[in-house]
Amino acid sequence: MSAQGVTPQSEDFARWYTDVVQKTELADYAPVRGCMIIRPYGYELWEAVRSGLDRRFKATGHRNAYFPLFIPMSFLQKEAEHIEGFAPELAIVTHGGGKELDEPLVVRPTSETVIGYAYANWIQSYRDLPVLINQWANVVRWEMRTRLFLRTLEFLWQEGHTAHATYDEAQEETLRMLDVYADFAVNDAAIPVVKGRKSSQEKFAGAMYSYTIEAMMRDRRALQSGTSHNLGQNFAKAFEIKYLDRSNELQYCWTTSWGLSTRMVGGIVMAHGDDKGLRLPPVVAPYQVVAVPIYKTDAEKSVVLPVMARLVAELRSAGLRVHVDDREEVSPGFKFNDWEMRGVPLRLEVGPKDVEKASAALVRRDIDDRKQAKSFVSQAGLANAVTGLLTAIQASLLQQATVFRDAHMHAVDTYGDFKAVIEQGDWALAYYDGSAEVEDQIKADTGGASSRCFPLDQEAGAGKCIVSGRPAKERAWFAKAY
Amino acid sequence: MSAQGVTPQSEDFARWYTDVVQKTELADYAPVRGCMIIRPYGYELWEAVRSGLDRRFKATGHRNAYFPLFIPMSFLQKEAEHIEGFAPELAIVTHGGGKELDEPLVVRPTSETVIGYAYANWIQSYRDLPVLINQWANVVRWEMRTRLFLRTLEFLWQEGHTAHATYDEAQEETLRMLDVYADFAVNDAAIPVVKGRKSSQEKFAGAMYSYTIEAMMRDRRALQSGTSHNLGQNFAKAFEIKYLDRSNELQYCWTTSWGLSTRMVGGIVMAHGDDKGLRLPPVVAPYQVVAVPIYKTDAEKSVVLPVMARLVAELRSAGLRVHVDDREEVSPGFKFNDWEMRGVPLRLEVGPKDVEKASAALVRRDIDDRKQAKSFVSQAGLANAVTGLLTAIQASLLQQATVFRDAHMHAVDTYGDFKAVIEQGDWALAYYDGSAEVEDQIKADTGGASSRCFPLDQEAGAGKCIVSGRPAKERAWFAKAY
Repeated sequence: MSAQGVTPQSEDFARWYTDVVQKTELADYAPVRGCMIIRPYGYELWEAVRSGLDRRFKATGHRNAYFPLFIPMSFLQKEAEHIEGFAPELAIVTHGGGKELDEPLVVRPTSETVIGYAYANWIQSYRDLPVLINQWANVVRWEMRTRLFLRTLEFLWQEGHTAHATYDEAQEETLRMLDVYADFAVNDAAIPVVKGRKSSQEKFAGAMYSYTIEAMMRDRRALQSGTSHNLGQNFAKAFEIKYLDRSNELQYCWTTSWGLSTRMVGGIVMAHGDDKGLRLPPVVAPYQVVAVPIYKTDAEKSVVLPVMARLVAELRSAGLRVHVDDREEVSPGFKFNDWEMRGVPLRLEVGPKDVEKASAALVRRDIDDRKQAKSFVSQAGLANAVTGLLTAIQASLLQQATVFRDAHMHAVDTYGDFKAVIEQGDWALAYYDGSAEVEDQIKADTGGASSRCFPLDQEAGAGKCIVSGRPAKERAWFAKAY
Repeated sequence: MSAQGVTPQSEDFARWYTDVVQKTELADYAPVRGCMIIRPYGYELWEAVRSGLDRRFKATGHRNAYFPLFIPMSFLQKEAEHIEGFAPELAIVTHGGGKELDEPLVVRPTSETVIGYAYANWIQSYRDLPVLINQWANVVRWEMRTRLFLRTLEFLWQEGHTAHATYDEAQEETLRMLDVYADFAVNDAAIPVVKGRKSSQEKFAGAMYSYTIEAMMRDRRALQSGTSHNLGQNFAKAFEIKYLDRSNELQYCWTTSWGLSTRMVGGIVMAHGDDKGLRLPPVVAPYQVVAVPIYKTDAEKSVVLPVMARLVAELRSAGLRVHVDDREEVSPGFKFNDWEMRGVPLRLEVGPKDVEKASAALVRRDIDDRKQAKSFVSQAGLANAVTGLLTAIQASLLQQATVFRDAHMHAVDTYGDFKAVIEQGDWALAYYDGSAEVEDQIKADTGGASSRCFPLDQEAGAGKCIVSGRPAKERAWFAKAY
């Protein structure tokens, strides 16, 4: 146990995760089983995810809209695979306004159906295409085993829904949004990801092809962190989404959907955290800097606080997110531990000696060694020094995660090696024929490893499936996953 | 009918509203009765409302969080007035994951109860106070008569929930947030509002006092546009929200809540719109400027478009929201009408002559007279000219709404005058004893006028209730309302 009462990762990673999420006040359990309260610190992390994505969506021509929470049950039944996939997870409203409803309403688990209904009304001709819409919303899936952020009955997400004139345009959009997710993960969340295509058993219910970004957590399990689907004409046919083409002929549209959820917050926790708690990348951290004034006497306090206030004001006007911990009832040492647990990237300390010397101390959260982590800087130019260090911390977290990940990913050629890699908790890349029976076999033989994706970035080639021996064109990543 | 097919306000205001909301693509009906699809143009208006409020909430020390959609039925029953008020409007989930639930879940109509539960867990001592949290969320109230934005089964809103050590602090917070709403309404939405206290019949179910901002629409009906409630200790007692005070004694907290919803979008439509359609205040308009290139021949086009592109880039880099209407299939005249209907504050026209003279034409949406609305400016310094005009338009819309409103608000001293004022569709200010029977009497006598509020801004005095003749300390506004 650390000073803060966080179970070490090595002792029990699952407990570590739950401890950290609760003790850092990211989230709390709700009174309804499987639901979550996202506390301000966790919600601010989500707001950073949200704004990082929203900016990218708008830059790629998408507009936000909002579709209703309630969907008639009959809508979900229009696409056969879709209802088959989602039926076991639905929450159903049967009563409204004191009366039993004629038709039960589904609380949306995803919105392809109701958005398909709307697009069928809105789209008339090729001039109306493409339709590029995203919504930020809550969705409900009746999960049995839940964990804060990673899998909850209700979660927050965005779901993009687009309609196109051709297959090629839909496919291009599907991959463009996968790239947007990867760009966000790498550059904002500092999480390296593998981009790839899901096996047909793992694809979205109703999709033609599903793509994913897969990230490695500190326990080496994979986290599916965002998905992008080419829906083909499946939903267009189910909801009659048609357009008149340039030759005045009626055609079905090609549609896509793509989503990323509050699960990403759990991913940020698990990709970077250590035994002391969170380590948040500066780009998404609610507080980039925590300022801790150091003093013992009232005389020191009256000297230190005005200087600290001035420095904090300078940092804030440089656009930095700074929190001042001016609590009287706890010691600086307590504050250091507390904010290390909460993962604030950089700590600013100012004491009486700093005031004398016009200096300040900066302590990095991403470096373990106390001496290396700490630097003394002149108060003049503090904002520049802080900005520089935050950039370095962002890069360092991405590098640490990448080094860690790459050390635990292995291409293998025999099923013996494959099982050994999975056995030691790592990821294995192997030729795979894409069949359900091979995936089931692997799950059974390895205690649960599943196909994560056929990575997009692989050499064209041909081999034999590592299990069935049948011809296989592509290798797939396998790992135990969340 | 206007060219765009919008029913004139004078002919049928309700039809005008529905026409405008649908034809400008603010919103559409959902497949479920009473639900709404907020289309991109409407959602962008809501995003402007949201960001204007969110900025103010953060500046007053509030943080965002997220509480669950589902609330156990038993929670709502803990506060007697609360359940009495909300019971008829609840949507109930009875089945989840294919099974009937042991306890039905309510889809939140508002979140005092589940947030009370959380605050009881989080608050221990006076050091934890105040708790200042807001959430952006969807809520569901099973309304029978619905209208797009104004009253829908599901709507988007924010709900602030705060906990304090004393009554005075809670009351101060309640009025502070009312001021925040009024400040937003006046300065961002250009809607003058009356701030006041609700009568005890009109207050929030479970509140001690409810405050409101009331706005006058173009049909002179009142729109309750935001409310702020001092909840006293009602929810603190129902949910055991207690804190240890400085003397180490356990005390109940004092709580507040305050909300503003997508109804505000309807308010913006109805406070400013005219027979041609929307007139959007520049601060909240999705597009502040629409750029329409004017050309007839390909030669003209090749001269005009590059200049337009340069000017638009300049406006955008000045931080302005600009939409370029480069459709080939419709004429400039069609575009003028279309964007007037959509309420874009300012139109930028550039034609071949403008290119020659290095000039551009700007046309204001807030001025009816065609000549007065149009000005010609030099391309050099266009961004300054546009910014200046947008500021003028913002002020002009507020002034027009204020002049209109003030012409239709009357203080009266006799019930005869009172009924005459209501009869002609205006608002009446009169001494009122606050009783339910007087309000019921007035409703019956006037075909539905209700007490809007006891305005905060009134001279201290004493009089006799205009209906009962009983002593009354305050005057109240009465009007027909949405």
